[in-house]
Amino acid sequence: MAEVENNIDCPFCRSGIKDLSFFENEDFSAIYNVAPILPGHALVIPKKHITSFLDLPDKDLFEFIKFSRTVIKILSKAFNTEAFNWTLQEKDEAGQSIAHMHIHIIPRKPEDLPHPGDWYPKLKYNINNILDSHKREKLKPEQLKVIVEKLQDISAGIIK
Amino acid sequence: MAEVENNIDCPFCRSGIKDLSFFENEDFSAIYNVAPILPGHALVIPKKHITSFLDLPDKDLFEFIKFSRTVIKILSKAFNTEAFNWTLQEKDEAGQSIAHMHIHIIPRKPEDLPHPGDWYPKLKYNINNILDSHKREKLKPEQLKVIVEKLQDISAGIIK
Repeated sequence: MAEVENNIDCPFCRSGIKDLSFFENEDFSAIYNVAPILPGHALVIPKKHITSFLDLPDKDLFEFIKFSRTVIKILSKAFNTEAFNWTLQEKDEAGQSIAHMHIHIIPRKPEDLPHPGDWYPKLKYNINNILDSHKREKLKPEQLKVIVEKLQDISAGIIK
Repeated sequence: MAEVENNIDCPFCRSGIKDLSFFENEDFSAIYNVAPILPGHALVIPKKHITSFLDLPDKDLFEFIKFSRTVIKILSKAFNTEAFNWTLQEKDEAGQSIAHMHIHIIPRKPEDLPHPGDWYPKLKYNINNILDSHKREKLKPEQLKVIVEKLQDISAGIIK
């Protein structure tokens, strides 16, 4: 992975993020969203402060996508569904609220929202600079602990 | 690329799709959306009828993502912006309306929609089984021809 300075103002670069991580390797981490749009809403990030999807060298890009696909498998197993949304927003104009590249993965189930497309407008309000939302309900630390530990266990089983 | 039968009921497998293609290689194609949500709205597809993102072998996955990133560069140049949405919907429950895997790429500009998240709910209505929309305006063949040819020219310049 390319050498990039961490950014102390970035919530994805702070050490507190580790409590939300359920699957990681040297370069990437999957973290649970503290205010999920739907159960299972997670984010995949490079550990280094890389801003743009276009800045990842090919080799790192491949590893990132492969890692993301494993995260999909973990979430599918944990939330018992094969349907998911996977999205990346590049720059403010596209709705990127944290300038550290990240992919949203959201497991989906029939009629989990009034309309399948309803999840997207909620993304913008779901994460702000304190990795939280003023508009959506935040999970309590004990709720997060339970779910992150469950996902860690499933991850360990999948990558065996 | 893995051997997969084409599906005669699939709009992405039909020969008419070629008129919309502005960049392709042996395995993948970038096609312009006949009813774009915003100018530049394009789709990246494998030419073979692969249903699921999870079914692509690692090697093909890497080529697909690399190809997609080149498509982003083409669209960024053509529509003069570095911002974009990139999304994949897996299965009906997630809003996938055509069972042939595809990634949407939508160039974005400041205030191009009332809210940055407004593009997403429109996706569901944007494409149906005739690669068209009953709810959104469809570009005329001559409009499509102009834009596809412009994108073909830019593609040729970028991959030189």
